[in-house]
Amino acid sequence: MSQRLTADLIVTGAAQLVTMAKSERVPRIGPELRELSIVRDGSFAVANGRIIAVGSRDHVFAAVSASAQTRKLDVAGGVIIPGFVDCHTHTVFAEYRLDEYEWRVAGTPYAEIAARGGGIAKSVEHLRATPQSTLLERTRQRVYSAIRHGTTTIEIKSGYGLSLEHELKQLRVVRQLRDELPIQVVATFLGAHAIPPEARSDREGYVQALIHEMIPAVAAEGLAEFNDVFCEVGAFSREETERILRSGQRAGLKARIHADELTDTGGAELAATVGAVSADHLKKTNDQGIDRMAKAGVFGVLLPGTSFGLPSLDFAPALKMVEAGVRLALASDFNPGSSTSESMPMMTSIACSHMRLSPAEALSMATYNPAFVLGRENEVGSIEIGKRADFLVLDGQDYREVMNHFGVNPVARVFVSGREWDRTERHRE
Amino acid sequence: MSQRLTADLIVTGAAQLVTMAKSERVPRIGPELRELSIVRDGSFAVANGRIIAVGSRDHVFAAVSASAQTRKLDVAGGVIIPGFVDCHTHTVFAEYRLDEYEWRVAGTPYAEIAARGGGIAKSVEHLRATPQSTLLERTRQRVYSAIRHGTTTIEIKSGYGLSLEHELKQLRVVRQLRDELPIQVVATFLGAHAIPPEARSDREGYVQALIHEMIPAVAAEGLAEFNDVFCEVGAFSREETERILRSGQRAGLKARIHADELTDTGGAELAATVGAVSADHLKKTNDQGIDRMAKAGVFGVLLPGTSFGLPSLDFAPALKMVEAGVRLALASDFNPGSSTSESMPMMTSIACSHMRLSPAEALSMATYNPAFVLGRENEVGSIEIGKRADFLVLDGQDYREVMNHFGVNPVARVFVSGREWDRTERHRE
Repeated sequence: MSQRLTADLIVTGAAQLVTMAKSERVPRIGPELRELSIVRDGSFAVANGRIIAVGSRDHVFAAVSASAQTRKLDVAGGVIIPGFVDCHTHTVFAEYRLDEYEWRVAGTPYAEIAARGGGIAKSVEHLRATPQSTLLERTRQRVYSAIRHGTTTIEIKSGYGLSLEHELKQLRVVRQLRDELPIQVVATFLGAHAIPPEARSDREGYVQALIHEMIPAVAAEGLAEFNDVFCEVGAFSREETERILRSGQRAGLKARIHADELTDTGGAELAATVGAVSADHLKKTNDQGIDRMAKAGVFGVLLPGTSFGLPSLDFAPALKMVEAGVRLALASDFNPGSSTSESMPMMTSIACSHMRLSPAEALSMATYNPAFVLGRENEVGSIEIGKRADFLVLDGQDYREVMNHFGVNPVARVFVSGREWDRTERHRE
Repeated sequence: MSQRLTADLIVTGAAQLVTMAKSERVPRIGPELRELSIVRDGSFAVANGRIIAVGSRDHVFAAVSASAQTRKLDVAGGVIIPGFVDCHTHTVFAEYRLDEYEWRVAGTPYAEIAARGGGIAKSVEHLRATPQSTLLERTRQRVYSAIRHGTTTIEIKSGYGLSLEHELKQLRVVRQLRDELPIQVVATFLGAHAIPPEARSDREGYVQALIHEMIPAVAAEGLAEFNDVFCEVGAFSREETERILRSGQRAGLKARIHADELTDTGGAELAATVGAVSADHLKKTNDQGIDRMAKAGVFGVLLPGTSFGLPSLDFAPALKMVEAGVRLALASDFNPGSSTSESMPMMTSIACSHMRLSPAEALSMATYNPAFVLGRENEVGSIEIGKRADFLVLDGQDYREVMNHFGVNPVARVFVSGREWDRTERHRE
């Protein structure tokens, strides 16, 4: 008989313990998205920050030893879910674009907002003028708020610098947070977010700078795991996107694409062609693109907050993608100009109201599946033996309140690697 | 020279002090909804729970005296707005209808949900089976959460009892909260929310019971200020609504109507005819109804959370009503089966995204105007001399973040009659 591990923490009394466990470690697709693996009156044990046993109380107490140091947490009929994995954000920014928000709500066309100096260009202007230390402090407070709303793994992109200096500045902020915070922070280089103002007469010059200067510098400093491109009319063409992504792949950066957000540019198909991990947005993707993504195993990352915040109120065809067997995730797209929210619970609410995803589908797409997008499927996304003990104790009695009780943070307590995050930490920007 | 009042509290340093002050104490209509009366670097003073001076720091220090007991609050560049006045809620309920939420998201027609025993009937079943003490505790925790989200005046309706005993039970819960909480709690009798199951073969018998038993009992016990009727196909006809409302008026209860939510039943016009204070919902109201409301001074209470939560995603024609000069307010409609949120900030976000109201219009409609709906216009809704010192210190630097930063509670601190509400109070249901 093998020696039993000694638990640092034993959690008991969860009326609903939503483990998201799956027999094979592969993404959930189609009807599997509705299978959450809920243990009634569930329990689990943690040692060295990792899950070492999960199941009924009796099972867990039989499987592990307790010592005098073992902490006990009885959630007394509460609900526990895995921490959210937010796999698409632009959290390093200087400030919200509030004037534009008013214009957008009033229906001002994007072209006119751009003509007034708005859009991504405005955030680039703001970011370039903001020192790294200020950006760090503002981003830190935003990530604290995301954690209070249950995010325990977060991806953060650059893309408001658009020059070697300022892209590195953004990514160093991300690295600092990765180093200081207990949660998983994953960096993506998005130098190809827009053509910067100073390069408008020389697009090719900027693409060359991305390929020959910026990507190599980012890779050399180990500042990012992913390379992302905004493939869109007015941003980067398919041909440019492909060259930039392949260049990143040669430097060891996995590819992602902002695809088919405003127009159908064939971004979904391109993602399949280049072997991108994900295509994100996908509001305008055609059936062929959906089919190619399903066959190639490209993740579709859906961003309902963007449609709500713009507001555009047209949404990616989520149910059609579920039906087609596409690997799917939900993310916040948190940014200063459209999806101005770091709340993953809010994203699941919008996904249910507007995309008609079921609460279970939305939860799978906000926890288990996005861990695969970020290459963290052996670390986070479910409450399974060997994974980090990242979990949330919710207010309420049923996980569906996360979606149903919209606009109200359902997260009572956040645990990261088995340690409680101090939710009294608050931000003032 | 008159003697200067001694302040209990002096607040300074608000980068934006949104007072909502207006030269005449009348509702804001049309373009006035955009005029918020913002004082830059604003200050105000409070004595005995009421505002005694507002303006620049110099003005306020010249207008009042400070003593050793005077508290000073420097909000250091923050934003202050009046507390929210939520003038339409159904906060006394037993539990959320989560199974129905899944069905609704999946597009199940209401008729089928009703056939499965769902809808209001299900909440009536739940409420009748729940003792008053349990209802009180659950409602109290919900109101605490509403306060944390900035609500400092709340209207609460009955309407899940539908019998003398259980309607009184609900209203006694409201009275208890009115008596124990520092915020303003306003009660509305909504016995005419639906025909109760046991009266389906005798509608007229139930209307008679409302008129001859329930309304007199509610009025005699002083349990409500308002009498409300759900005027809708399947609920109460125009003719029944008018009889019930006039009976309430004779008993001293002011009239309100749930009007034109699902079908255009002429509820808006009826509100004008009977002299109702408000017509609420108004998703299907026709142009003539809008015109009658504007001319009669009937408030339109718009409930964007209901459309989001159902989800139906059709909204009242708010901009058309602004244009027509209708008196307008926003409210949460917080209830267990459609608008499952007590967050007024969230309601303003949905109003901007879906109704295309500007942030300023949404704020006027969530603070100043609804105070008139509840007959509290001399008490709450703005930061003006003589009114209660109900105000919110926000996170962020601009009131528009309330709407723009959606799904995240923007309220850092809540003050009711000049005293801070302890926001560490949390609920576990």
